[in-house]
Amino acid sequence: MERLKDTTAITEGREEKMAKHNLFETPRFFADVYVLQPGQAQKVHTHAGEDKCYYVLEGAGVVTTGTERLAVRPGQIVMCPAGEDHGVENPGGPGNLRLLVFMAPHPRPGEVGA
Amino acid sequence: MERLKDTTAITEGREEKMAKHNLFETPRFFADVYVLQPGQAQKVHTHAGEDKCYYVLEGAGVVTTGTERLAVRPGQIVMCPAGEDHGVENPGGPGNLRLLVFMAPHPRPGEVGA
Repeated sequence: MERLKDTTAITEGREEKMAKHNLFETPRFFADVYVLQPGQAQKVHTHAGEDKCYYVLEGAGVVTTGTERLAVRPGQIVMCPAGEDHGVENPGGPGNLRLLVFMAPHPRPGEVGA
Repeated sequence: MERLKDTTAITEGREEKMAKHNLFETPRFFADVYVLQPGQAQKVHTHAGEDKCYYVLEGAGVVTTGTERLAVRPGQIVMCPAGEDHGVENPGGPGNLRLLVFMAPHPRPGEVGA
């Protein structure tokens, strides 16, 4: 596994749905970059035993965590504890929403961005 | 625990040694912001059972991971696997080096930035 990754080079979205680009993964955690085009979302969902964080690299979005819906901008980070609803959306752009995402532990090592 | 933190507001260093500002912690992981003034370092050390990542928010630094020493800049992220040497330094500034740091699992919940 290459030790250094450059998130500034990871900008590519997908027309069909948000893009997940894995940076690192071990059984203990994974780190991904998500790219959401305007109108795309990671639907609200729950992991029973894993904590997740969304850190905003670029763009504007809305993160759901538990019962809260939080507008986020670059440099902000949101905690999504195990067992609680969470998700993220790029409601209006104008540009892509790029996120650095951590989850610990890794529920399914080998499957990117579970 | 407050769910949203703004890393852009976390800029304060310490004259004595690098500053650790905790964002979130659970038994599964912690997220900190480190601020290293020019000349400061987190000495090379090892955690037997925890993986760590350093993501560069601002400034220029050098990360040690295993046998590698990697020059890093904002937007880059370095993986430091469990059981291997790692550390980070701000050798020459000119400004502070600010890092977003993740470790999983959390070796000592309640102790910031272990």
